[in-house]
Amino acid sequence: MQWTATVLTQLLKVKYPIIQAPMAGGPTTPELVAAVCNAGGLGSVGAGYLQPEQLQKDIQTIRTLTKQPFAVNLFVPCSSVESATVQEKMQQQLAPHFAAAGAMVPENVSAPYAPDFDEQFAVVLAEEVPILSFTFGALDAEHIKALKQNKTIIMGTATTIDEALTLQERGVDMIVAQGYEAGGHRGTFLGKEEQSLIGGMALIPQIVDKVTIPVVAAGGIMDGRGVLAALCLGASGVQMGTAFLTCKEAGVAQCYQDAITKAKGEDTVLTRMFSGKLARAIDNTFAQAMVTQTEIPDYPIQNKLTKPMRTAAKEHNNIDYMSLWAGQGAILARKMSAAELITALIAEVETLLRN
Amino acid sequence: MQWTATVLTQLLKVKYPIIQAPMAGGPTTPELVAAVCNAGGLGSVGAGYLQPEQLQKDIQTIRTLTKQPFAVNLFVPCSSVESATVQEKMQQQLAPHFAAAGAMVPENVSAPYAPDFDEQFAVVLAEEVPILSFTFGALDAEHIKALKQNKTIIMGTATTIDEALTLQERGVDMIVAQGYEAGGHRGTFLGKEEQSLIGGMALIPQIVDKVTIPVVAAGGIMDGRGVLAALCLGASGVQMGTAFLTCKEAGVAQCYQDAITKAKGEDTVLTRMFSGKLARAIDNTFAQAMVTQTEIPDYPIQNKLTKPMRTAAKEHNNIDYMSLWAGQGAILARKMSAAELITALIAEVETLLRN
Repeated sequence: MQWTATVLTQLLKVKYPIIQAPMAGGPTTPELVAAVCNAGGLGSVGAGYLQPEQLQKDIQTIRTLTKQPFAVNLFVPCSSVESATVQEKMQQQLAPHFAAAGAMVPENVSAPYAPDFDEQFAVVLAEEVPILSFTFGALDAEHIKALKQNKTIIMGTATTIDEALTLQERGVDMIVAQGYEAGGHRGTFLGKEEQSLIGGMALIPQIVDKVTIPVVAAGGIMDGRGVLAALCLGASGVQMGTAFLTCKEAGVAQCYQDAITKAKGEDTVLTRMFSGKLARAIDNTFAQAMVTQTEIPDYPIQNKLTKPMRTAAKEHNNIDYMSLWAGQGAILARKMSAAELITALIAEVETLLRN
Repeated sequence: MQWTATVLTQLLKVKYPIIQAPMAGGPTTPELVAAVCNAGGLGSVGAGYLQPEQLQKDIQTIRTLTKQPFAVNLFVPCSSVESATVQEKMQQQLAPHFAAAGAMVPENVSAPYAPDFDEQFAVVLAEEVPILSFTFGALDAEHIKALKQNKTIIMGTATTIDEALTLQERGVDMIVAQGYEAGGHRGTFLGKEEQSLIGGMALIPQIVDKVTIPVVAAGGIMDGRGVLAALCLGASGVQMGTAFLTCKEAGVAQCYQDAITKAKGEDTVLTRMFSGKLARAIDNTFAQAMVTQTEIPDYPIQNKLTKPMRTAAKEHNNIDYMSLWAGQGAILARKMSAAELITALIAEVETLLRN
């Protein structure tokens, strides 16, 4: 099996069909991204929450650390409904949790709830980013056209066949098929998130069969076994998030990394409580306490509301109130450098192929 | 990769590490089981709902059709609470659906709700069944001992690491790791079913790493891609259900088979409405109508309550009221004979290994 010579490695101009997932909110430091690229994989900046200036700075830092191609990931803006009543109720609900996390009383928040997408996108164009991946939606024709004029390779995220077909029609170069196992936010943008939770074993081949462009498998892939399994299922490459969260270059607190390596499959939950959008995290006090909540402000309003609590928790190394994004394969994560992880993955795949 | 020479093929004395899943309620006819065995796989009788006499008859028929080893699967009895109030309310809820399905008004049901386990087990012993698999629980020491004295190979079903370790401790010979993608009933017996929904990509390697006995992967495996992927993840073999439901030897109505080949990953749902136990089925009118129901009689009481509706629906080829058990890979199912399916699987795996 010529596993490294896929259509993906040719398109992305990387040695191995291994993508470090873009994980927004801190983990994807320029050091992590560059280390992955230098080791022959594709590093990705999780830029969803980055202000344009910070994104530009990160891109420039990455370029001082590697000559290899890298990716930037953006969140396609979602429509969200503002409701003063829902927000006030949520602030009341959050108060005891803010106190427990050592944060100030939750304050009323107002727009903007997230960095400006068009300003982020302008940085991607100006910096001639080699690869742009996106999630939470389908980029429109205008944005796709601008990227193509810039010779940027475009990757969209799909959680169902229909989403994959929509993205292909829009003109993306490849599809990230996000399985149910994946940590962090669901990329679902057609239909309901709860109905688009398809495990990788079933999702990857059914998307591969329906599209003509390369498919990257994401969700639960933690080691060489997962990499080779995904390629067997028809993927041209893999995107791995949780496996890179425990790398030493990742911007992830020690207590969070420790929690990852202990989390069995059943220890993660899908919850909207941290951000207003469904996402997989290691179950903790906050997720548990809010499990019966049904009236949650839309993403990204809830995300801005809970941020001071999560920031305070991080400062106090308090995993009870942090958003511990992780996939169902968390327990298989290893603490090592990104280069060591890539080397291990390659060795594992090659050992499997020899036996 | 010497993919057919696994510890599993040696233990089971089969040519290929491919098990046709035991699907209770009709699909696993003696013809299907024997065809799979004759083609080099392991056929399994889904005997959970079979009366002991019928089980014995099926075993004897299988033996006239094949000289190869085969498996019988039993449901370990679960504790269930009887409540006249809950049952009465459910009967009222069911009334319009019974009418729509062309069944008589739902009647009060009483014990026994399922065939007697010990009588079924006695048949397994008396017939010296080569392989016994079980689900919904962990067989106790006494039953395990009797099987071992009979030289029966024992397979238990696990949905988490903890369940796999429990089964190993009880002395089973191998573990079926049931992923979230799987069709039909969840095998969960420790913790809550909703918290034991782990996708195969994450579940298989994490169980493989914790147990010392062979692991069989189940859930979403539909073709040679899935078979090889599961072996890459560390499984010693695969158990495939939905893929065999569309075989011509399966005891499955044409309308049900047609629904399977059309069902995308997001078209199946996990529901308790048919039997009282969480199970994955193709979404239909009945599952939709009852989606908000929270007060459901325990399994197997609800199973007995809804049975006349399901039977009538089957007689009228009405898929709106049948329990259309299927996994998330349903759309990949193919209509062919069991021998053709096994031949296709082998060819697909070998093509993958050559490229």
